[in-house]
Amino acid sequence: MIERPYLLFLGDAPDKLAAKVAQGIRDWRPDNAVGQLRLPGCKADLGLPDLSIGEAVEAGVKTLVIGVANRGGVISPAWKTVLIEALEAGLDIASGLHNLLRDEPELAERARERGRQLHDVRVPSVAYPIANGRPRTGKRVLAVGTDCSVGKMYTALCLEKALTEKGVKATFRATGQTGILITGEGVPLDAVIADFMAGSIEYLTPDNEPDHWDLIEGQGSLFHASYSGVTLALIHGGHPDALVLCDEPGRPHMRGLPDYRLPSLEALRDLALSMARIVNPDCKVVGISLNTSALDDEAALKLCEETEARMGLPTVDPFRHGAKRLADALDGL
Amino acid sequence: MIERPYLLFLGDAPDKLAAKVAQGIRDWRPDNAVGQLRLPGCKADLGLPDLSIGEAVEAGVKTLVIGVANRGGVISPAWKTVLIEALEAGLDIASGLHNLLRDEPELAERARERGRQLHDVRVPSVAYPIANGRPRTGKRVLAVGTDCSVGKMYTALCLEKALTEKGVKATFRATGQTGILITGEGVPLDAVIADFMAGSIEYLTPDNEPDHWDLIEGQGSLFHASYSGVTLALIHGGHPDALVLCDEPGRPHMRGLPDYRLPSLEALRDLALSMARIVNPDCKVVGISLNTSALDDEAALKLCEETEARMGLPTVDPFRHGAKRLADALDGL
Repeated sequence: MIERPYLLFLGDAPDKLAAKVAQGIRDWRPDNAVGQLRLPGCKADLGLPDLSIGEAVEAGVKTLVIGVANRGGVISPAWKTVLIEALEAGLDIASGLHNLLRDEPELAERARERGRQLHDVRVPSVAYPIANGRPRTGKRVLAVGTDCSVGKMYTALCLEKALTEKGVKATFRATGQTGILITGEGVPLDAVIADFMAGSIEYLTPDNEPDHWDLIEGQGSLFHASYSGVTLALIHGGHPDALVLCDEPGRPHMRGLPDYRLPSLEALRDLALSMARIVNPDCKVVGISLNTSALDDEAALKLCEETEARMGLPTVDPFRHGAKRLADALDGL
Repeated sequence: MIERPYLLFLGDAPDKLAAKVAQGIRDWRPDNAVGQLRLPGCKADLGLPDLSIGEAVEAGVKTLVIGVANRGGVISPAWKTVLIEALEAGLDIASGLHNLLRDEPELAERARERGRQLHDVRVPSVAYPIANGRPRTGKRVLAVGTDCSVGKMYTALCLEKALTEKGVKATFRATGQTGILITGEGVPLDAVIADFMAGSIEYLTPDNEPDHWDLIEGQGSLFHASYSGVTLALIHGGHPDALVLCDEPGRPHMRGLPDYRLPSLEALRDLALSMARIVNPDCKVVGISLNTSALDDEAALKLCEETEARMGLPTVDPFRHGAKRLADALDGL
């Protein structure tokens, strides 16, 4: 668990996209984001107050979160100066970078001296159990995709928002580093040892109140040759009561696999449901989430309507249209 | 790669079953097994010459293999004396124990001093790639099961033997610690990091001659809530041309999951084939392997015949009846 609230470190981000982790925190947990810290040359701006480390501490910040990708996989001297200043001022640091904070001797030593935490969220910090396959109380929905990076995390976050707005108890459950940084906790599933994958998801989504929904962040795709095993562990560990199908229309091939075409929504529905029903025979597909970011408003709406008519399931782009219709479908289960 | 041949260390095995790793080596790679080393009280006997460390070295042994489970997860002082003697005599040591040889300071230090290897085969020693999903030359068959521990490893080993006897080029590819100790190499799939599971199997089964068969050791089951993700990674990383369905009739429930009944062979066939065809549309189910060890000869034969009539696929217990009919089916592809 990462202590909140955060100061979002944008470093020398060359553009807005490089700061997408910070943007995700700003969009989805604005209460966690007290301010931003930018270095000279930074081209990203979240519209938050620019705070020095000292000002952040005064404002009650507990953790500096690295909300930006680093260039060339190196933590530069300019970054390091800020990170050391943060530790000396009593802040923890959280990072989803590939190269770990703990592997930087200066940071590790300073954190130890000051009793501060370095959260490398790509690396599991828990000894997860082997999955026991038992149903838990409370309800769970999982976003499954035709491919990687089609909008599964955003779908779950939009669903959390829409359910909460309806007065339904709901918790987003992060399974990747961006989601973990947004919420401050979760399971970095792609870094878990094979035998413990499903168990880590059982651990993430424990018994809960009967009318509470866990919105589980999806990973990979059953149809993606590189990561399908991760997806299946998520389905079996998550024990979902409901699935939402996610797709980004128009992709020429599976992400990173030029020789693989994307499956149809029908194929995804059938295979994901077969898999989910192994652990929960009552699991249902409740709706479809399309990532229409490449389309204009009219084309986006038309595609949703056509897909809805074809599949007989509520279909929205939750980021564009809101997830209320999907939340209604869940709430009706 | 573990250097061969081996001296099989049986320790103080309380019964034959405790030495099943050693038995597997003796059964499947008799050329690797030069002798056995037993401590006082050992109740297992492989029928191999009892050799001291010195005699083993003279006989050309390169590695002492721990072929027995340890009691209480502890490497006892009696064991340690033998292991240190082996290192001093110039042998490597290989182990599939949960507690690692490298974590024993005396062993680690002695190995370093003598320039010897400690092979903890439960732990990956390779940085596996992310799977690329591309087909490779050569042919591959994977054993898939209704459940864990239904005989997938034995099926693959029996197939290797039967194909070799027919003059077909064939290589067993180990994916678990017993298989790795038997052959001296392989991938400990259940200990691989999630993102690299499928890639590790691509690495294990690279391009080969067009008429060569890889016999890939199966793991887990698509229907087993704890390990299904591992199984799917094996299917997608293995890119199989053929599947053999494995079952042990009569199990009351899935192994370790009292609330889960086993799937039918029909359900296994349909789901495994759907999954395999995502990466290889030409994949076929070629036969069925039944573990009939709980049945008498007549009942075993009857069950195979009934299953064959029902499923329309060659059905044998390969350990009991040989795998020739399955090998013929593969060879005809």
